[in-house]
Amino acid sequence: MAPQIDLNSDLGESYGAWRMGDDATMLELVSSANVACGYHAGDALGILTTLGQAKERGVAVGAHVSYPDRVGFGRRNMDVTSAELTADVIYQIGALQGLAKAAGTRVTYVKPHGALYNTIAGDARQADAVIAGMLAVDPTLVMMGLAGAPILERAKAAGLPVVAEAFADRAYTPQGTLVSRREAGAVLHDPELVAQRMLRLATDGVIEAIDGSILQLDAQSICIHGDSPGAVAMAARVREVLLAGGVEIRSFA
Amino acid sequence: MAPQIDLNSDLGESYGAWRMGDDATMLELVSSANVACGYHAGDALGILTTLGQAKERGVAVGAHVSYPDRVGFGRRNMDVTSAELTADVIYQIGALQGLAKAAGTRVTYVKPHGALYNTIAGDARQADAVIAGMLAVDPTLVMMGLAGAPILERAKAAGLPVVAEAFADRAYTPQGTLVSRREAGAVLHDPELVAQRMLRLATDGVIEAIDGSILQLDAQSICIHGDSPGAVAMAARVREVLLAGGVEIRSFA
Amino acid sequence: MAPQIDLNSDLGESYGAWRMGDDATMLELVSSANVACGYHAGDALGILTTLGQAKERGVAVGAHVSYPDRVGFGRRNMDVTSAELTADVIYQIGALQGLAKAAGTRVTYVKPHGALYNTIAGDARQADAVIAGMLAVDPTLVMMGLAGAPILERAKAAGLPVVAEAFADRAYTPQGTLVSRREAGAVLHDPELVAQRMLRLATDGVIEAIDGSILQLDAQSICIHGDSPGAVAMAARVREVLLAGGVEIRSFA
Amino acid sequence: MAPQIDLNSDLGESYGAWRMGDDATMLELVSSANVACGYHAGDALGILTTLGQAKERGVAVGAHVSYPDRVGFGRRNMDVTSAELTADVIYQIGALQGLAKAAGTRVTYVKPHGALYNTIAGDARQADAVIAGMLAVDPTLVMMGLAGAPILERAKAAGLPVVAEAFADRAYTPQGTLVSRREAGAVLHDPELVAQRMLRLATDGVIEAIDGSILQLDAQSICIHGDSPGAVAMAARVREVLLAGGVEIRSFA
Repeated sequence: MAPQIDLNSDLGESYGAWRMGDDATMLELVSSANVACGYHAGDALGILTTLGQAKERGVAVGAHVSYPDRVGFGRRNMDVTSAELTADVIYQIGALQGLAKAAGTRVTYVKPHGALYNTIAGDARQADAVIAGMLAVDPTLVMMGLAGAPILERAKAAGLPVVAEAFADRAYTPQGTLVSRREAGAVLHDPELVAQRMLRLATDGVIEAIDGSILQLDAQSICIHGDSPGAVAMAARVREVLLAGGVEIRSFA
Repeated sequence: MAPQIDLNSDLGESYGAWRMGDDATMLELVSSANVACGYHAGDALGILTTLGQAKERGVAVGAHVSYPDRVGFGRRNMDVTSAELTADVIYQIGALQGLAKAAGTRVTYVKPHGALYNTIAGDARQADAVIAGMLAVDPTLVMMGLAGAPILERAKAAGLPVVAEAFADRAYTPQGTLVSRREAGAVLHDPELVAQRMLRLATDGVIEAIDGSILQLDAQSICIHGDSPGAVAMAARVREVLLAGGVEIRSFA
Repeated sequence: MAPQIDLNSDLGESYGAWRMGDDATMLELVSSANVACGYHAGDALGILTTLGQAKERGVAVGAHVSYPDRVGFGRRNMDVTSAELTADVIYQIGALQGLAKAAGTRVTYVKPHGALYNTIAGDARQADAVIAGMLAVDPTLVMMGLAGAPILERAKAAGLPVVAEAFADRAYTPQGTLVSRREAGAVLHDPELVAQRMLRLATDGVIEAIDGSILQLDAQSICIHGDSPGAVAMAARVREVLLAGGVEIRSFA
Repeated sequence: MAPQIDLNSDLGESYGAWRMGDDATMLELVSSANVACGYHAGDALGILTTLGQAKERGVAVGAHVSYPDRVGFGRRNMDVTSAELTADVIYQIGALQGLAKAAGTRVTYVKPHGALYNTIAGDARQADAVIAGMLAVDPTLVMMGLAGAPILERAKAAGLPVVAEAFADRAYTPQGTLVSRREAGAVLHDPELVAQRMLRLATDGVIEAIDGSILQLDAQSICIHGDSPGAVAMAARVREVLLAGGVEIRSFA
């Protein structure tokens, strides 16, 4: 049986007159779309358009929930209360569910965005608040999180299905965490190298860490970016190499 | 069989640290809550709290959708495109559906708010955009509109169930439209008078117009306000007089 | 003495993570920058950066004030009260003055943006509200408006200096108004043609209307766009042709 | 010579249709108004109205600058960059300066609000960013901060005039810091007790700490609240007792 993996990307991140990314192209490449819900990016009409395109191409839809910080693009830590965070998560998922319904599709997973993603990878209080929001609105929603991060165990223990993701263009420490962006070599720029690393991950479940050691990484999805022409080219190459290597690209959901 | 009527009020209109209205008290008086969806008022946590109280008291929940104008409280006309308006309506209904699900209840109707309410009463283009949003997200949603306004026929023709509402504290022209707030006598302040008018409406289907003529008014719901102590007192009196007059107060949904 | 004309363009319109236009390049081409003030576009840090670049290049700074409608980019009519509009104009000018001070420059004029620009060209009530805001914060501010529009007379009568602008890429009716964008030929796309038209305007004070008639147009400034590579190329060509034709490009302020 | 002290309060915190506090009444009691700038609270028209009242009553005006978090009322920590924070501070001061100019008054000091106030009391990076913003827009602006907090020394060293404030309704530790709100007795509710403490502070420069020890506290201003009827009554009593005790209430600016 062919190995399978999901490719996910952040989409629906335009806002009003401002464009970001090339959703139409990326939706030809990925199997899962993390769609902005209006808190860090996305306006209702733009989101609806992206959802319609996702539906047409059979791409799965996830809610890319965020802190309420549009001007900061959800990239700044915010010390929200648990009750606020739970309600904000529900609001965003609900809004996306409504738009997805209108587009003839549905929301199958949740991937927290930006600072919220990083915070809940380790912060149990905020993680629990996000989990509570997901359980309240639809307990069949899959939590997508960083492979190896405590959030995944926490979500699973709370009864949510989970999926672990790897980052295509990031270097890994021997411990399986991401090399900090402040370190040299943290971000990979060579499409061919990235594509080969992802093929090995998809087929053998391993990735080479920054020190050359070989790391087991249990990931069912790969996050790829599409916010620049170079990013789109890398995404296309990853897809190409995976397919050529006999990997089936499909959503986990 | 006892005459029936619905009492509806605008709720969930606090925002962050700012309070508006007394939702807990009003939810003891009304049968339907028009709940803000975050565009003109309401933050996710505050809305969720109001929805929880509505659920407890068996009050029906409607989406009080608005133009995107928080600082103007949705009271200013905005020349939105049809596509924007449809998507904005879907987004708001979806967000409220998500929060309602979390609160153990559900959204059964839509009542546009403020300037949008007034605009779509007569403007066919914007009316159709709101109707399209409702049909896209849930065609069983009831459209609540001004008794006698073209919007109700339009929504019905599009396949939506409709409910007509009267305004408890407003004077009517002999033609059955509201007397403009710019005219003397447009707003009624005497709770007893208002209550008696509403009792007559509920039992006989008529209301006295500002010129003393008697008007047939086909309304299944009465809108009452709760945004001041005086408004709450008037709402309480309306309820009391209706019940004493043998009218059953219950949601249409 | 050489003929003079001002070239103005809308700048500072990025927002947070979203880019719009190429401010650095346009600031090499224009003599006046209409800088967003945060209502339709622009965040404080982005605006400050643009102002610093304008200062370096000796480009004059105007406040590009707008309705409070970020998601609609200030392009939708809003029925604001006069008091709201006056206060909103003051707030925006003040904010830009503060940032300009920090950047070592100052705000010398005001050009209303988008729907507000179009509305006040003819609507006396909103025009007066904008004028009142300008007078209240700095009566030496120049009002920039559409050549021939009533707003300019109105502002002058109120004591404000005024400057009339022509649009480089728009066709004119024989009456001197802009041909509506809904008409064929309303927008001009040929950089050479546009440049020659602007040279004639700057040297002879005339422009050819859409019916071939020659129109006197009293304009001290030319608005050019920079929101696409094609727009930047057109702006560069207009500048080039004006300079080659012996026109001095300089701010009116 | 009579002892002097300033009374300051947070004002201009209404937003659109939402009221907060009783500005008109508080402006009869205080000598300095910390006026919201639109980031945590305040819309342009409401701020302008409050500034007009402050002008009439001869009350000094300070910019109550905040993180950009309206729904959180500026009470949540946000991990903003220094450049963002500096620009945001300039923007807010500038906007308030514009409105103050229109109201016939001017901004003489800055008091950071909420989470920003607490953060910069100790966080040197964010403190420096706020200081840089103040210096850039007007180096004569006074920094108001918590008596005893490092921010005051830091601002002074950077060349800003400073004023230290005490909190009327808060208990102090023997070290001169505020008792955490999580501790019993942190907030004082008895107007008479509070007034007598403030009289002693104004005349003798001392305050009784929570353990009964007597603490030297160098404060030139007292912060009092006005966001509830009880708060207004306490403010009135503090003013009354200070005046009866021969203290002159006047702004430091």
